[in-house]
Amino acid sequence: MSKRHDPDELKRKLHAFAKEAPFFQLMDLEVLDFGPRWSQCRISPRQQLRNPNGSVHGGVIATLIDAGITQAMLMTDEYQVGVREEKGFLTTVDLRIRYLRPMTAGAMTCESKIVHLGRRIIHASSAIQNDEGQDVALGDAILSLISRST
Amino acid sequence: MSKRHDPDELKRKLHAFAKEAPFFQLMDLEVLDFGPRWSQCRISPRQQLRNPNGSVHGGVIATLIDAGITQAMLMTDEYQVGVREEKGFLTTVDLRIRYLRPMTAGAMTCESKIVHLGRRIIHASSAIQNDEGQDVALGDAILSLISRST
Amino acid sequence: MSKRHDPDELKRKLHAFAKEAPFFQLMDLEVLDFGPRWSQCRISPRQQLRNPNGSVHGGVIATLIDAGITQAMLMTDEYQVGVREEKGFLTTVDLRIRYLRPMTAGAMTCESKIVHLGRRIIHASSAIQNDEGQDVALGDAILSLISRST
Amino acid sequence: MSKRHDPDELKRKLHAFAKEAPFFQLMDLEVLDFGPRWSQCRISPRQQLRNPNGSVHGGVIATLIDAGITQAMLMTDEYQVGVREEKGFLTTVDLRIRYLRPMTAGAMTCESKIVHLGRRIIHASSAIQNDEGQDVALGDAILSLISRST
Repeated sequence: MSKRHDPDELKRKLHAFAKEAPFFQLMDLEVLDFGPRWSQCRISPRQQLRNPNGSVHGGVIATLIDAGITQAMLMTDEYQVGVREEKGFLTTVDLRIRYLRPMTAGAMTCESKIVHLGRRIIHASSAIQNDEGQDVALGDAILSLISRST
Repeated sequence: MSKRHDPDELKRKLHAFAKEAPFFQLMDLEVLDFGPRWSQCRISPRQQLRNPNGSVHGGVIATLIDAGITQAMLMTDEYQVGVREEKGFLTTVDLRIRYLRPMTAGAMTCESKIVHLGRRIIHASSAIQNDEGQDVALGDAILSLISRST
Repeated sequence: MSKRHDPDELKRKLHAFAKEAPFFQLMDLEVLDFGPRWSQCRISPRQQLRNPNGSVHGGVIATLIDAGITQAMLMTDEYQVGVREEKGFLTTVDLRIRYLRPMTAGAMTCESKIVHLGRRIIHASSAIQNDEGQDVALGDAILSLISRST
Repeated sequence: MSKRHDPDELKRKLHAFAKEAPFFQLMDLEVLDFGPRWSQCRISPRQQLRNPNGSVHGGVIATLIDAGITQAMLMTDEYQVGVREEKGFLTTVDLRIRYLRPMTAGAMTCESKIVHLGRRIIHASSAIQNDEGQDVALGDAILSLISRST
């Protein structure tokens, strides 16, 4: 962690920021908890996020994975130093979702973790479960970290 | 096409349905045109669909690809007979998005096509461009068609 | 497991079969252990499986994942009944490899597991480590099981 | 192209190198033709590259795509300058194969192209057909170019 940031203070600010994010509100997305290299996020989808047959849209599930993986990066040194301090960029290069079971009722919780944090290439994985603990989807992403100093 | 449907009439009904779809409205998503095995869809994202830095959320781009590929299936015989008439299911098994360039301004248009339509497994691909004709993202999906008669 | 097979006897036969498989011999591939829904396989690559710079070819790593996932299916009821007894088919629909670290020296071990075994669609994952226990690659696959009786 | 290389001479040297590559010989792999950002490669698989049921192993098809995409990079400026002259690295980050049809007889030809060549991230795609012109597999890859000067 960058010396300039107290981890607790940083987390409070990031959490408050997530609560106010307009897109997260639009998607009923809540950041439950997070730390360096992991996050737990949740969507309790209202009717508008569902297909006529009641199942949640694939794009909503993709959004939960994409947001969860980004959230898992925010408290890492690599993000705080490379992106925040040195004005670099973190971009998603590739996102993949494997849909295991339709999400028909209740909320879904997504656990995300950074599985490989290289200097330039980052690999992350997510797993989404429904309220009964059944697997709903698996996700993974490749991100690219472009710092100004390299 | 199923003998019971006039293609023009079917297309009109499906297009009207897409215009009224609550989730499409939420995501500023418009179905421009479509036919058996292809579609052209568009998102003109308002501010709420963007990150604080102005780029469109990855989940919005994933939504455009997911919706475009589903739309490309609707007028196929396989969908109209297997799903509509015989009460089968079409589900997305796998969705992948390769992000090529941040989507910072204007609208984005997605061309989707079904590249392989097997009896049970369907492969589809999408390409998204911005208003300057630059590639923004590539997508592909694997769908599973489960008809009651098989 | 099909009632007609003793699991120990089945495993012995499958293991002997893997040892004799010409393609496995060509790729220096050894099946270490396996059971229903999991396998552990290994490649100790000779020079011919390496690039001029000494790193193992990406196709060799893909082969290890593909073989490991198939091996993880062989002792499942779904395979023994659906494919062996009922003359169905198991095919790989999609295979993905995420390369985390070049494989420059020693052997690599691949743990594969079936993470979702639906009636028609199967999701599997693999992780490859080098002899120092470092992650070399992650893999996943989607398989389709087509039994004659459905 | 780097000023120090004559393209025709470079191509001759690269083609001769591919013909002698031990792994390509092991996999019956032939580089038919190539240029900056594209390649055409072919595998005429002998019996040892096939499953007992006669279909070509998935790892062989993955090898053809991986090799074809790498070959499509060799004559680009980015490779010749960034990797050859400046002693940088080109690595495959992600490889995906979508299997459309079993490869049961004859040879298969793979067309590969670089679809997006960024400064650090490269996206490539391949399509494999059998001798009847039927699609056998689709592939894509993400590569990372790490030059010493950046």
